[in-house]
Parts: sequence; structure tokens; C-alpha cells
Amino acid sequence: MPKLRFHYFDFPGGRGEPARIALRFANIDFEDIRFPAETFVESTAGFMLKQVPVLEIDGQQITQSNAINRYVGKLAGLYPKTDFEQLLCDETMDIVEDITTKIVPTFFMQGEQKKSAREDLCQNIFPKYLKFLEQKLTAAGGEYFADKRLTMADLKTMMLTAHLCSGALDHVPKDIVSQYAPLLVEHITRVSQHPVYIKGQ
Amino acid sequence: MPKLRFHYFDFPGGRGEPARIALRFANIDFEDIRFPAETFVESTAGFMLKQVPVLEIDGQQITQSNAINRYVGKLAGLYPKTDFEQLLCDETMDIVEDITTKIVPTFFMQGEQKKSAREDLCQNIFPKYLKFLEQKLTAAGGEYFADKRLTMADLKTMMLTAHLCSGALDHVPKDIVSQYAPLLVEHITRVSQHPVYIKGQ
Repeated sequence: MPKLRFHYFDFPGGRGEPARIALRFANIDFEDIRFPAETFVESTAGFMLKQVPVLEIDGQQITQSNAINRYVGKLAGLYPKTDFEQLLCDETMDIVEDITTKIVPTFFMQGEQKKSAREDLCQNIFPKYLKFLEQKLTAAGGEYFADKRLTMADLKTMMLTAHLCSGALDHVPKDIVSQYAPLLVEHITRVSQHPVYIKGQ
Repeated sequence: MPKLRFHYFDFPGGRGEPARIALRFANIDFEDIRFPAETFVESTAGFMLKQVPVLEIDGQQITQSNAINRYVGKLAGLYPKTDFEQLLCDETMDIVEDITTKIVPTFFMQGEQKKSAREDLCQNIFPKYLKFLEQKLTAAGGEYFADKRLTMADLKTMMLTAHLCSGALDHVPKDIVSQYAPLLVEHITRVSQHPVYIKGQ
């Protein structure tokens, strides 16, 4: 097993948490380097793109959260084995990443600009993407997004959907997920009660 | 082999072309559904997210270009076999996708707004990403981004870098790649002279 060092914010969510959950669940030894948002500049000073998560593998820095999720998922047994189920897992992770990419800029906004951007997300982005994810879940059997078992796609999706339901995002109603994709609310419960999630938290 | 139908714009580049090149190179039977930008609305009417590429596999619609690239790359023998080399291939494809995501909104701009957005890309986005890609290429041995051979990562990267060098993007100087990442210009030549690319075009 290579020497792993994982750099990400010190909060239980976002782009980095699925990999941490998988590593902890599978008892894979790694250095869990966490930092508060306030020290972002110092904590990412050694990274060329100033982005996290970063996974160091024997000293080599790897970026891109879904690339990392896929690698860690293979180590942890949380990635499908067949080409087609891998494709479904990959597609879901990239859909969730697309949604995340649309939310992130609003974290750096204030006041009216933020309100307007969040309302736009609630009207034009979340409904279609949440419905699409619900349709994908149903097509895959209704319980998990790929392989008929919990994979990285479920951890990645649940991080986002649970966040949307938490009320932590100003101007995003807490029922946005249940309004457009009630099966995704059941999926949050399914994942949060799963041994992988419980052990990996 | 499943029945494949691939939907994308009728031009030789962008998010869809790497998969088409791989399919053609490997003589994989697929229905190549191409449409001009003018019929985008009609051509994507059956797709929930109104995005392309879409790969239909035995009638099931799959979105997300890099998920599709990975799946097609496995079918065509253009995806690495080991976890670590797969990770390098995935990381590169996602870096290129990040850059693409920053360019796409400027296609829908006009006049001063477009000029200003493109100049911002040239100042703040392309330099750091191109240097980063060059560094990744060097770390992987200098010729290809993963597995010491041409993979989907090289096709994906070359689509972008060749486009940047083509002069087709207003307000983006044709020497932007050679300015910041001369090894990526050599990489374009390497890929364009490779049997995979030549046969797959």
C-alpha cells in the first residue's frame, strides 16, 4: 500500500469527504490533513492550482476530487467491477460535480448578489439536476446509483443532497430535494444508515 | 458488444471527439449521430439535461463526457490497466474538463463582454492550468499523460490544446500554449502523428 496523505477542509462534507469516509471505512492508513477555511492560503501554498482535495501518493500530488474518489473507491472496495456499472458510478459522480461547480461561486457572494444567484440555482439548476439524479437512481434499481450496492457515487451524492436539505445554504429552501426528487431524500437515509457511512464518518 | 449510438455536434473537436476517435480507431460499431449547432434544440429534445455528448448503450442514455471517455477507452484499449495509471489518466481528463468548463460560457458572449472574459482566461486561467498540465506530462515521463502510451487523456488534452493554438478563439493569442507550456505543443504533434489519432479521425 502506498503512503497516502489527504489534504482537505476540516468539515464533514464537500468534495473531500467521500474519499475520507471510504479510507476510514476500509481501515486504510492515511494521514488526514485537515485545515479550517481561514488557513486556506497557507494550507494550499504547496499546491500549484490552490485547490483541494489533494491526495499525495508516495509524495506525488494528485488533484481532482472524482479522480481521487475513483482511486480510493478501488482501494476500499467501493467502486464497481464491470465496465458498465463503473460507467454508471462515474456518470453520477460527474453529475454531482457539475451541480457542485454551480454552487461554489455563490459561497463567495454577499447580499443581493448571493440571494439572486441562489434563487437562480433553485429555479433553473437544482430542479432539473435533482430530477435527473432521481431518474438515474430509479434506472439503477432504486436503492443505489450503481452495482446495486453502496459505491462512491452514493457517498458523493449524499454529501450534496444532505447539504441541500440541511438549511445551511441561505436562500435554498430545506425542502428543495423532497420537492423535486423525494427518492433522493430516502437515499440520504439509506446511505446515512449504511455500515460504510457509519464506520467511515 | 452492446448497441452504441453517440450524439454530438458535427465538428471535429470538443467534448465528444475523443470518444469518436477511440471508437473509430478500434473499429467498434456505433451509430455516429452528428448535428450542426443550429439544430441543438431539436437534436437534444429527447435528453433531460439538454447536454451532449450522450452515449446510448442498448437504449440507455449516458451523459458526462469523461465518464463516456473512460467507458469507451476501456472498449478501445485506450485506458490504463493499473489503479495508479488510471488515476493519472482520470486526473488529466478532469483538469482539461475544468478548463473547458471555464471556456464554454464565453461562446455565448458578444463584443466587449466576450473580449473581457477571454482576456481574463488568458491572464488568470490558461497560464496556471497549462503549466500544471505540462508538469503532469513531465511527471508521467514526458510523452503521454499516463501509462507511457497514448490514452484517452492524451486525446482529450490534445483536442483542447490544438483548439487553443488554432486561432479559432477570438482574443486568445495562437501562441498561448507555446508561451506557457511548450511541451504541450510537442504533445499535440505527437498525438496528431499517432496511429490512433490518424486512424480514428
